[in-house]
Amino acid sequence: MLRTHTCGELRINDVNNEVVLCGWVQRVRDKGSVLWVDLRDKYGITQLIFEEGKTTDEVFKTATSLGREFVVKATGTVVERLSKNDKITTGDIEVKVSNLEILNKSKTPPFTIEDDTDGGEDLRMKYRYLDLRRNVVRNNMLLRHRMMQETRAYLDGQNFTEVETPVLIKSTPEGARDFVVPSRMNQGEFYALPQSPQTFKQLLMVSGFDRYFQIVKCFRDEDLRADRQPEFTQIDCEMSFVEREDILSTFEGLVRHLFKSVKDIEIGEIDRMSYDDAMRLYGSDKPDTRFDMQFVGLNELAQNKGFNVFDSAELVVGICAKGCAEYTRKQLDALTDYVKRPQIGAKGLVYVKCNADGSFKSSVDKFYGQDDLQEWANKMSASPGDLMLVLSGETDHTRKALNELRLHMGNELGLRNKNEYKVLWVLNFPLLEWDEETQRYHAMHHPFTSPVPEDLNKLESDPGAVKANAYDMVINGVEVGGGSIRIHDKEIQQRMFKQLGFSDEEAKAQFGFLMDAFEYGAPPHGGIAYGFDRLCSLFGGSDSIRDFIAFPKNNAGRDVMIDSPSVISQEQLKELGIDLK
Amino acid sequence: MLRTHTCGELRINDVNNEVVLCGWVQRVRDKGSVLWVDLRDKYGITQLIFEEGKTTDEVFKTATSLGREFVVKATGTVVERLSKNDKITTGDIEVKVSNLEILNKSKTPPFTIEDDTDGGEDLRMKYRYLDLRRNVVRNNMLLRHRMMQETRAYLDGQNFTEVETPVLIKSTPEGARDFVVPSRMNQGEFYALPQSPQTFKQLLMVSGFDRYFQIVKCFRDEDLRADRQPEFTQIDCEMSFVEREDILSTFEGLVRHLFKSVKDIEIGEIDRMSYDDAMRLYGSDKPDTRFDMQFVGLNELAQNKGFNVFDSAELVVGICAKGCAEYTRKQLDALTDYVKRPQIGAKGLVYVKCNADGSFKSSVDKFYGQDDLQEWANKMSASPGDLMLVLSGETDHTRKALNELRLHMGNELGLRNKNEYKVLWVLNFPLLEWDEETQRYHAMHHPFTSPVPEDLNKLESDPGAVKANAYDMVINGVEVGGGSIRIHDKEIQQRMFKQLGFSDEEAKAQFGFLMDAFEYGAPPHGGIAYGFDRLCSLFGGSDSIRDFIAFPKNNAGRDVMIDSPSVISQEQLKELGIDLK
Repeated sequence: MLRTHTCGELRINDVNNEVVLCGWVQRVRDKGSVLWVDLRDKYGITQLIFEEGKTTDEVFKTATSLGREFVVKATGTVVERLSKNDKITTGDIEVKVSNLEILNKSKTPPFTIEDDTDGGEDLRMKYRYLDLRRNVVRNNMLLRHRMMQETRAYLDGQNFTEVETPVLIKSTPEGARDFVVPSRMNQGEFYALPQSPQTFKQLLMVSGFDRYFQIVKCFRDEDLRADRQPEFTQIDCEMSFVEREDILSTFEGLVRHLFKSVKDIEIGEIDRMSYDDAMRLYGSDKPDTRFDMQFVGLNELAQNKGFNVFDSAELVVGICAKGCAEYTRKQLDALTDYVKRPQIGAKGLVYVKCNADGSFKSSVDKFYGQDDLQEWANKMSASPGDLMLVLSGETDHTRKALNELRLHMGNELGLRNKNEYKVLWVLNFPLLEWDEETQRYHAMHHPFTSPVPEDLNKLESDPGAVKANAYDMVINGVEVGGGSIRIHDKEIQQRMFKQLGFSDEEAKAQFGFLMDAFEYGAPPHGGIAYGFDRLCSLFGGSDSIRDFIAFPKNNAGRDVMIDSPSVISQEQLKELGIDLK
Repeated sequence: MLRTHTCGELRINDVNNEVVLCGWVQRVRDKGSVLWVDLRDKYGITQLIFEEGKTTDEVFKTATSLGREFVVKATGTVVERLSKNDKITTGDIEVKVSNLEILNKSKTPPFTIEDDTDGGEDLRMKYRYLDLRRNVVRNNMLLRHRMMQETRAYLDGQNFTEVETPVLIKSTPEGARDFVVPSRMNQGEFYALPQSPQTFKQLLMVSGFDRYFQIVKCFRDEDLRADRQPEFTQIDCEMSFVEREDILSTFEGLVRHLFKSVKDIEIGEIDRMSYDDAMRLYGSDKPDTRFDMQFVGLNELAQNKGFNVFDSAELVVGICAKGCAEYTRKQLDALTDYVKRPQIGAKGLVYVKCNADGSFKSSVDKFYGQDDLQEWANKMSASPGDLMLVLSGETDHTRKALNELRLHMGNELGLRNKNEYKVLWVLNFPLLEWDEETQRYHAMHHPFTSPVPEDLNKLESDPGAVKANAYDMVINGVEVGGGSIRIHDKEIQQRMFKQLGFSDEEAKAQFGFLMDAFEYGAPPHGGIAYGFDRLCSLFGGSDSIRDFIAFPKNNAGRDVMIDSPSVISQEQLKELGIDLK
């Protein structure tokens, strides 16, 4: 190696040793006859010192010529620092440089390579290779690296076999839009990039692989919302001869292992909640359970008291914000504005302040007396000092709006600490969704998802009430993974297809080779997939998956650094047998 | 789990225990009142026994109904076997079944699920999910799994950071043909799939990642020869602040670790050989060094003796096949036919038998006396009993042909043992290749490959003689990996581009953002990439990479199992803004 040590390695024990360091110039402090340079590499920062007269004129002159981000090789002696810096691990020492070689110069970077950079998002994306030099971004990548290694170590230890499934596969009409790849050798035909290895992992179970995993790139050609990427990474897993409990416990094990090994956090109890309860108590299938503030239904207490808004509502439901009775008019108006925003779309917000003296002050005093409001308070476990916030309307819409308000209040009250983690399984999702447009049921997960055994007998008589043997893992209100026990029984599969409006022939046409495979001894099996980018961002305490992807694309699906996608040559088009419109 | 044990787990210690096993029916032996079933899963085979009268009629009846590849769950008691089977790990015991559940039936598979199957290649590819049930194929995948885990464990231990580089990138005119992906959001533009992450790994060095690795899918839209796949996997690595020696020793460490951890083999000395020596002594840049049989030049001894074929040849060169003097006329004719095949294209083969009595018998006795042949024998270290085989002609062509003959003789003499491994570095490849067609030099590796320092001064005066600081790892005559120290100095890069006939502007146009990145402090760096499919097949003792890929494509680039590529809908084409010709 060109160096003897990295820039994060030297300690007080190394004093008097001759060392060679390589790295980038982070900062130069020039005091005339003394010059300090902070030298940076992946491992840390070490201070170099040059003293005029004590080093050769040539070395000193070279040192004075250094600019930010120059790459240098410095030879010198480790000495104890006069004023120590306890913010960095090498802060007890500095290196008195006897020889200095500039390995490469650098133009002045378009933004500062600092945690708190002056570069805007667009500039940093264009020069992503410089952005990646910043500690904060590099640390995200190192976290991701560690997450990958620990994920595989755990799964390997549990007898999962890593199998690479193909990237050039076949386009299917179901699901999101595929990216396609024109075939030159088979002109007029296309490969598709996988949205997930779902089919292949089920085939691997048919093949007897027993336990499969892969950390794998997947692709969806969707219009990009914030925080969606056209290519993303999944931890993809499948197990044979299991029931739901086996999968839940195996993957509780995975997240416990990840939290322990990567963040040294022992996560506590992992709760389980039915989809129905999640919707009823939190208005969301991915509730943030770091804090309570559960929904309380008020239909019985609040209806038929002459307040038409409530009387005509399908659902009247509230939350109790502890200690918020002091909210000012302005604050309450802001909350009302918040729920009335088009994204949330509530018509209005009813508040009830529980005053310190036991009395109540509400926005609906005209319709409800103190006794009425006391009953509300009792039901909502509201005490003096608390603030009750109530929404009403159509059930799904109202729940969704109150979910947003609850999360907002959670933020306002500081109940959503990024360094606290609460893991939850949401279970028993509906198997089927009614689609008004096509007037038929759709599989909520996918057509191979098994119903829970106890609902099998309702599949024909009450299909909408059948629950799926499906599960999502939710951490801090973020869905990080989901999966299901699959149907392996041919008869149940046929009943399922019938509910989805497929004939046997249509099912075969659409899911052909998987259906074929299932005829040759498919074992009972189930699996799960984690959104790895999101899991990393959660572990890193960020809302943005982009911060945890080395070379992300922007919202238009462009990589602005390499300027892709781009035009290709006429010759390429001709070889592929395609024309541009 | 549905089972208490796997089918590879039960031992004599487990006798009398109640167990539940799940798996596939490998074989049923029906002796009327007694019935044995071999139950198979990923972990092994366990024998089940059903005795009429000692089990319920229903269980016995179910057992008699079992067909090959049925999936069952069997509950029973472990008993000691009367006749033990030492070929399987569970051979001391069998399970006396008290309850049997058929979890899934199976149609009769189209070929037998046995090591020695009756299924042809095409059938097995169409039903790859059944082929993967065969021990031999599954074991290949388990080997691959182990190779992946051990590769990462080693590199992680050496401070390499795993970074996922993008799959949707930009098409470049250099190198092999790209697969492209039409963009819907940016109609008329295309992404390309990476042929390797070369650019991105160099950018990561510019970013200060210091040591990078990835086990990554790469793509090349080439006409497929046997044993090439349109998508393949690389172990891709890059290091900063290194010289060649650092890379060689780091990756010697990797292969030593892999051989030790995966195959429990200590590989001996890892030899190094220059490209020039490899060509001179073996006629190949990837010599199989498990056996000697090196080339010996005979120009001096054999020319100017009146044999026109040799006299007019640029090169006369031979090998000595130990102990082959007994070869019959027929065997010698077969060797001549072998080298005259169009793929090899030699005009003829000269042989010299070293008889037991010290005399010589050759195909050129007319031109060479016993003394002449004795001189040849001395130079080739041939002893009585040996056979000298000599080719002549244009240098490159003759070397190539003699390389083929040497490998062929190695096979004939059993010198190419698949369980013996010989690792070799080939160093100092030519930097540039002269291209007759375009009348200019091309980079043999790529334009960022550094010349060896001692040849830098010849870059302008004698470009064809400049060696690259590039290296290939060769195992048993197979090139498993290769890489180079990169150019990080702008001035040398400009000199290199000049030799390649690029102006600064053309270089910028073609390698734009990488050139830009290099202006901001690129460290000295170099790297290597291993063909992972090939490395696995080599470890598995196979010549076919296809045997080590779970779902390979055929020579026409088709996946015959899923029937891909395939046509896509008009609606998809319309959204992408493309027409078929």
